[in-house]
Amino acid sequence: MPSFKLTLAYEGTDFVGWQRQANGPSIQGLLEEACLELDGRAVTVNGAGRTDAGVHALGQVASCSLERPVSPDVVVRALNARLPPGVRVLSAVEARPEFHARFDARAKTYRYRIWNAAVLDPFERRYAWHLSGPLDVEAMGGAASLLEGRHDFAGFQASGSATHTTERTIRTSVVTRTGPLVVYEVTGEGFLRHMVRTIVGTLVDVGRGRWPAERVRDVLMAADRTLAGPTAPAEGLFLVSVEYGDL
Amino acid sequence: MPSFKLTLAYEGTDFVGWQRQANGPSIQGLLEEACLELDGRAVTVNGAGRTDAGVHALGQVASCSLERPVSPDVVVRALNARLPPGVRVLSAVEARPEFHARFDARAKTYRYRIWNAAVLDPFERRYAWHLSGPLDVEAMGGAASLLEGRHDFAGFQASGSATHTTERTIRTSVVTRTGPLVVYEVTGEGFLRHMVRTIVGTLVDVGRGRWPAERVRDVLMAADRTLAGPTAPAEGLFLVSVEYGDL
Repeated sequence: MPSFKLTLAYEGTDFVGWQRQANGPSIQGLLEEACLELDGRAVTVNGAGRTDAGVHALGQVASCSLERPVSPDVVVRALNARLPPGVRVLSAVEARPEFHARFDARAKTYRYRIWNAAVLDPFERRYAWHLSGPLDVEAMGGAASLLEGRHDFAGFQASGSATHTTERTIRTSVVTRTGPLVVYEVTGEGFLRHMVRTIVGTLVDVGRGRWPAERVRDVLMAADRTLAGPTAPAEGLFLVSVEYGDL
Repeated sequence: MPSFKLTLAYEGTDFVGWQRQANGPSIQGLLEEACLELDGRAVTVNGAGRTDAGVHALGQVASCSLERPVSPDVVVRALNARLPPGVRVLSAVEARPEFHARFDARAKTYRYRIWNAAVLDPFERRYAWHLSGPLDVEAMGGAASLLEGRHDFAGFQASGSATHTTERTIRTSVVTRTGPLVVYEVTGEGFLRHMVRTIVGTLVDVGRGRWPAERVRDVLMAADRTLAGPTAPAEGLFLVSVEYGDL
């Protein structure tokens, strides 16, 4: 019974998110249906990150076990033949039987894209948050760097979330600008629900001059969601990659 | 009565093309409706290139005359407020009263994008032609360069087209590859109907090894559409920019 590590890209626009749900097509649901057709039995597909509705992935990772002895190449072709064109299996590699995309993930990298110009490029409207006013990207970068290290991120999670611990370790947290495109990129060992989007909403409030960069430290210390900025819209967020040790 | 040169970007996916048509929304139709609301009377909007259904534009140019004395900034904001997000006016500048986007254009640049890899990137599916087999990009580039200069392009126009003359001058005609992305870029003083897409279909047949690069010369000499390759799909084509003299 071979296990596989699947690397996936998808455009989140038309899906209810990673996780199987009753209200529409999910990436997990589509993959499980495609695996059912390939393997002839119900297959559970686990994803490294449970991306929300509208969130995109360049390198999501999923794991599954199949009973049929198939090669990784056949898995890629068979799943892509059954998936809609907005979801693609980029590669498959065999993994040890107990490999689990979420539990074995060591780190994840997310990217958030902001289009900062008077007019929104029509080719960016599904892939960026449009903000037309001035943004102080240096102040945003200063605020972003305060998040690096191990902190209690309770102030940056969706209100009402219940998790064992809200401490997480962020390795890098950086803001860059290339013309109208402002990009926030964050690599961490784990993320809470809506954490990246709440960080971005807070960084944007800093960039707009509403708060000083140190506001980020206040949110961390108080662990109070009401002190943070708004949750940035889903369409700007991309799960870029997931890091593992030996498969 | 000020005249304006409008520079536009649009994603062609959801439109029937530039030209007003009965069977669905066109870029010209949407702009004329937006101008009607702004100017309070019927306005004709002329485009430099009549892009087909599904073809995109990064820098289409259109001209129109308005009776209301409005500034270019107001034109940009008022039209964008009325247009769908897939069509954007990037800029407006005042032009002489008789300025006509099509008749005054000196040159146009088109780009055609091919995604040459086993798996189509889901973010490229609206913006590229997916070809999974090997492509000899050097042979394609050699064939492309044979089109530079003044030639009779009758063999590369949509069959059944009626035009005064089928001679056109191509300044540059170049194929490049960056990873899986193969790009054909062509600048010319004028183009026939489906000319760029028929050139691309022919270059792809050369890239696949079906024909030698010199086939392009045969199509030019014979002026026979049946000798050229298939018409490449619309979604890979972008009108990049249009060149003018004094406005």
